[in-house]
Amino acid sequence: MTSVSDTASRAATAPLLVAAAGGKPAHPPVWFMRQAGRSLPEYRKVREGVPMLQACFTPELVCEITMQPVRRHGVDAAILFSDIVVPLVAAGIGVDIVPGTGPVVAEPVRTRAAAEALPALEAGQLDKVADAIRLLRAELGDTPLIGFAGAPFTLASYLIEGGPSRHHERTKALMHSDPTTWHALLGALAAITTTFLEVQVAAGVQAVQLFDSWAGTLAERDYREFVLPHSARVLDAIEGVPKIHFGVGTSELLPAMREAGADVVGVDWRLPLDEAARRLERHGTAKPVVQGNLDPAVLLADFDAVEGEVRRIVAEGRAAGGHIVNLGHGVLPNTDPDVLTRVVELVHSLTP
Amino acid sequence: MTSVSDTASRAATAPLLVAAAGGKPAHPPVWFMRQAGRSLPEYRKVREGVPMLQACFTPELVCEITMQPVRRHGVDAAILFSDIVVPLVAAGIGVDIVPGTGPVVAEPVRTRAAAEALPALEAGQLDKVADAIRLLRAELGDTPLIGFAGAPFTLASYLIEGGPSRHHERTKALMHSDPTTWHALLGALAAITTTFLEVQVAAGVQAVQLFDSWAGTLAERDYREFVLPHSARVLDAIEGVPKIHFGVGTSELLPAMREAGADVVGVDWRLPLDEAARRLERHGTAKPVVQGNLDPAVLLADFDAVEGEVRRIVAEGRAAGGHIVNLGHGVLPNTDPDVLTRVVELVHSLTP
Repeated sequence: MTSVSDTASRAATAPLLVAAAGGKPAHPPVWFMRQAGRSLPEYRKVREGVPMLQACFTPELVCEITMQPVRRHGVDAAILFSDIVVPLVAAGIGVDIVPGTGPVVAEPVRTRAAAEALPALEAGQLDKVADAIRLLRAELGDTPLIGFAGAPFTLASYLIEGGPSRHHERTKALMHSDPTTWHALLGALAAITTTFLEVQVAAGVQAVQLFDSWAGTLAERDYREFVLPHSARVLDAIEGVPKIHFGVGTSELLPAMREAGADVVGVDWRLPLDEAARRLERHGTAKPVVQGNLDPAVLLADFDAVEGEVRRIVAEGRAAGGHIVNLGHGVLPNTDPDVLTRVVELVHSLTP
Repeated sequence: MTSVSDTASRAATAPLLVAAAGGKPAHPPVWFMRQAGRSLPEYRKVREGVPMLQACFTPELVCEITMQPVRRHGVDAAILFSDIVVPLVAAGIGVDIVPGTGPVVAEPVRTRAAAEALPALEAGQLDKVADAIRLLRAELGDTPLIGFAGAPFTLASYLIEGGPSRHHERTKALMHSDPTTWHALLGALAAITTTFLEVQVAAGVQAVQLFDSWAGTLAERDYREFVLPHSARVLDAIEGVPKIHFGVGTSELLPAMREAGADVVGVDWRLPLDEAARRLERHGTAKPVVQGNLDPAVLLADFDAVEGEVRRIVAEGRAAGGHIVNLGHGVLPNTDPDVLTRVVELVHSLTP
């Protein structure tokens, strides 16, 4: 077994880390959001009878599930198997993950008092997550491990709505009606998210991705006023690893999401990467590094169509200062895993 | 009772029609998508025990439901109460609307044979809809009536997926894997949609709105190749009334949606109307007319916040060649109807 420090120095030449730093890697790095999950039969097998949150707090299982797509597909990064609500659960907030529904919050947070009563998260409450990361670093060798956290806005939406929401109406109503409570809540969630990521970095993740899955439901004006300052506090607090910032439907938010402190900006399929890079460049000081942006639904088409899209995306990514190949959103559960493996092989055969 | 022809000439000065033609109306016209619906207690009362599709094919009920928000809020337009699947049902395609789920298709259309076997829609199958429109024109007086249809892409998504879908994965897979079947299906749906709107125009609607609710899930490249030609066939076939073209999350598609043949382009809240107008103007020959774009979720906030947003939107709309005030998506069921009435009063007090 290689020691963690040896691995760390070799990992610095890993294509994902080279690309994240704006360099030209040997081949385009590729990984897939939700690569560890329901598309894999080996995942469904180890999750049989194990509730989601129990899995997230069992280090050996987190390690096994995180490793599965690395072994099967040969992707250029592992991403810590976790869930957006894990830090809330660790802090003692009543949240469960209900199969077929998603996170369900026992007592939705909709008042100033409820926001101020949220418990803080202590690093010691995340020992199981840190253990999983140490196991993973020992197994992963040269393949970098990406840490994972939901952004304050997306966490707030779950807490306010009480669960997944299509229109985020209570969230937006609170934001506009009571900015003081809003900022108190987002501040508390930013602190929790920061602790969650700090523990991951201390335990050995070599990059982090902040998922603001629902940010794309906001106008840029509201994003800048109500969300950006809190995500920026999180990203500013994380040091020593590249920071990826991702959301869906964020064409209008990309420069703001970069300004929040991202080294790499995730882009969904609605905007070509060369156009995304142009928009980011107009607002930044250096060539942007982008991640994306294959439509996960396209993976269900014939492979000829998939190949055409992958080649286009890699070509469009050349306009940016760096490009990490990924989907524009998570792998859909009914994706054929063999298609993902073929995409990795194809990407690795292309010139970055 | 006023005759339809008298009403038609007076309606030409209706603020909505003046704005749609790029003129300056006496006050900014305002209506709300889904203004006739679950936010109104009088709607819930008349729908008690009446299935959605039965309501859509009962002229007196369509008339009553369409009139309710006109009476209550004093909006500047009525929109025909209908559903996106009504022309499919009229044509004999097996679709039902299941409460809490939405449209459910008995036999999803996923093959060339199934696409080619779709029945055509004959005008005579829409007599109940035409009757409803004639009743409405007699009741509405000077208030214009907007016709309603779902666009071919959005209809295709329901038919292919078999019901509502979050990721439209089968739809996109078919589009990319089998363009021949795709275009056969969209062509059949464009013909059905055209007939649906032609019947409405012949019966007396004074504007039409083509709802491509899901178009925003597509990249512009795919929209232009797989969707625009079919929506353009529909819009080109409709003559003599202004044509509004609407979708959600369409920041990147607005110029293409205008090019499809729209006189008015609907914009959701993600993009300010002045920026939307700039993007549309770069691609068009005349100042664009826009519709939108209050976030429906904001209607659940304190009225001070609502008022601020409405004033901003009316101010931003001045940059366009014309502006019809509306939401960026439909009224949410839990909206307080009194807030809608106050928004109408506020809009009418402002300078266009």
